Amino acid sequence: METVYLTFNELQKLVSEILVVGGLSKAQADAMATVMTTAEQDQCKSHGIYRILGAVKSIQGGVVEGHAEPVLFNTPNKPIVKVDAKGGFAPLAFDCGFDVLVEKTKQYGIGAMAINNCVHFSALWPEVERFAAKGLAALAMCPSAAYVAPAGGIRKLLGTNPFAFAWPCTGGNPYVFDFATSVAARGEVELYRLKQQELPDGWGIDSKGQPTKNPEAVLDDGALLTFGGYKGSAFSTMIELLAGVLIGDFLSIESSEFDKGRMLAPRHGELIIAISPDAFGITDAVEHTQRLLSEFEQQGARLPSQRRYKEREKSMLKGIPITQANVERLHKMKTGDFSENVF
Amino acid sequence: METVYLTFNELQKLVSEILVVGGLSKAQADAMATVMTTAEQDQCKSHGIYRILGAVKSIQGGVVEGHAEPVLFNTPNKPIVKVDAKGGFAPLAFDCGFDVLVEKTKQYGIGAMAINNCVHFSALWPEVERFAAKGLAALAMCPSAAYVAPAGGIRKLLGTNPFAFAWPCTGGNPYVFDFATSVAARGEVELYRLKQQELPDGWGIDSKGQPTKNPEAVLDDGALLTFGGYKGSAFSTMIELLAGVLIGDFLSIESSEFDKGRMLAPRHGELIIAISPDAFGITDAVEHTQRLLSEFEQQGARLPSQRRYKEREKSMLKGIPITQANVERLHKMKTGDFSENVF
Repeated sequence: METVYLTFNELQKLVSEILVVGGLSKAQADAMATVMTTAEQDQCKSHGIYRILGAVKSIQGGVVEGHAEPVLFNTPNKPIVKVDAKGGFAPLAFDCGFDVLVEKTKQYGIGAMAINNCVHFSALWPEVERFAAKGLAALAMCPSAAYVAPAGGIRKLLGTNPFAFAWPCTGGNPYVFDFATSVAARGEVELYRLKQQELPDGWGIDSKGQPTKNPEAVLDDGALLTFGGYKGSAFSTMIELLAGVLIGDFLSIESSEFDKGRMLAPRHGELIIAISPDAFGITDAVEHTQRLLSEFEQQGARLPSQRRYKEREKSMLKGIPITQANVERLHKMKTGDFSENVF
Repeated sequence: METVYLTFNELQKLVSEILVVGGLSKAQADAMATVMTTAEQDQCKSHGIYRILGAVKSIQGGVVEGHAEPVLFNTPNKPIVKVDAKGGFAPLAFDCGFDVLVEKTKQYGIGAMAINNCVHFSALWPEVERFAAKGLAALAMCPSAAYVAPAGGIRKLLGTNPFAFAWPCTGGNPYVFDFATSVAARGEVELYRLKQQELPDGWGIDSKGQPTKNPEAVLDDGALLTFGGYKGSAFSTMIELLAGVLIGDFLSIESSEFDKGRMLAPRHGELIIAISPDAFGITDAVEHTQRLLSEFEQQGARLPSQRRYKEREKSMLKGIPITQANVERLHKMKTGDFSENVF
């Protein structure tokens, strides 16, 4: 299959134009396109241009305010930032608060940002990486929709609740991870269903709360399980409390209620905590980090995000690879024809 | 076996007196005894009076400064607190910074405390619970000694790196969890060795980095694995970075080097992040929390710490149960005879 190589700016512009046709304001589309292009650049396909169609469906389904203008609340004398996304996608709201949180975190040593009333619909790693690029560590977390049962439970309550972390002091690419606190993403279970394969042990339960390997049973009336058993369940519950209750936004179960069974992109909030290494007076952070991370390589253990960084390097040299078929689909989308997805 | 019931104050005083005999200053002993009695009160045996002997051994082995006087560094105009434990046990250092961090967190909305150069030797939940009692959420984490291999790795690098969280807005006991990021604690593997039983799958690797069910092989030259596979490994690495590099203290691997194979209590630092729900302007925290947590009960899913809270209630009514044999052992310890442990 023929492949076309686009620069970051070319692809970002094309995706932004498509999203405007799909119903987003220019500002919303630009922010969203940047995040999708960032993912595509890293060959993180699940959050790249594949998401365009879902985004447009969510706009057309009325679950996202396509023209939302986020509002920033800057708490005076406190390193606390709140952004009301006004029902729009998260990236523009994130952009709206990012510089303020960076500045506050550098001033106070630690800070937090709540994004409220957003449809997240993107990975958390592009967000935490941006803090790392400013020399800050960052933790990000959000609920999603209720797909996951708590440990010992029998039905959906928690979201797939992702958690991401970035650490800047590496002398190179930051140490970044971003994982769902469910044992697997819903999309992975979906793939098992499509292939009519049995799920691995411990992924899900059926409508009676019994362990099942049937992807259909998990997706329909059952539930996914958390990663790491009761520990992951406790941790996922923490995310509901911090990125739900603390910031005055939806729990995953409330997000699902709001969705009314339409299975569109979930609406909820997000919490980001940023930390400045400077505030703790250390001077050996890069060397000390290297002491830890070099041991991974020596053991043959892969650090998270390494695959992405390799793909990024390639994309930056050669351009972002897009198949000719997908380029054609993207151009069809630009004319308002959203009948086909890109993969 | 006959059981004696002691009040919190009676047991705390007895343990403190023993620890003074064992080589701690009065201030160090009081703080340590309070934490041990708090654990014993909750029937959290692994961190209760069972730890006295290990504490004394660590003092006598020269790994702990029994008379250390922690020094507080209060960073002006920043919600950052640093306490140098000066090589002593953590509890007195924690006490030294606690009020300051509470005050700063209430003022700034979020704050962090680094404890440096401590021998932690206690659970993290008694610490985060104290923030919850002040109406604050808290996250606590620390490295330990290198017992755990990273995902995909072949030998020890990470610690059992515990992580704890407390959330105050429940209307009753806080939501609290505290777990090791290793799949199991070293003590649990030790029990399998004593019973000459095979380990469950996925707990450890041998000296060649191969999966093994032999507890001996894991404990001697092998390694434990992290909980939740590569996710737990990424998370445990975050703890090394935040509670090691960020605060300018030992990584688990450095703590092990410092220990020089003596297998005494590990020396390292700790990071605590505290958050004030008030800073985010929410008013429905208790009801909203209840919305989430009541679902656990309805599903028959146990919330973390419930067993402890039940035991605490009993202890507060009847006193803390100590077997007559242990009372006798404690009194022998008070005379300087540390030949027998309490269990």
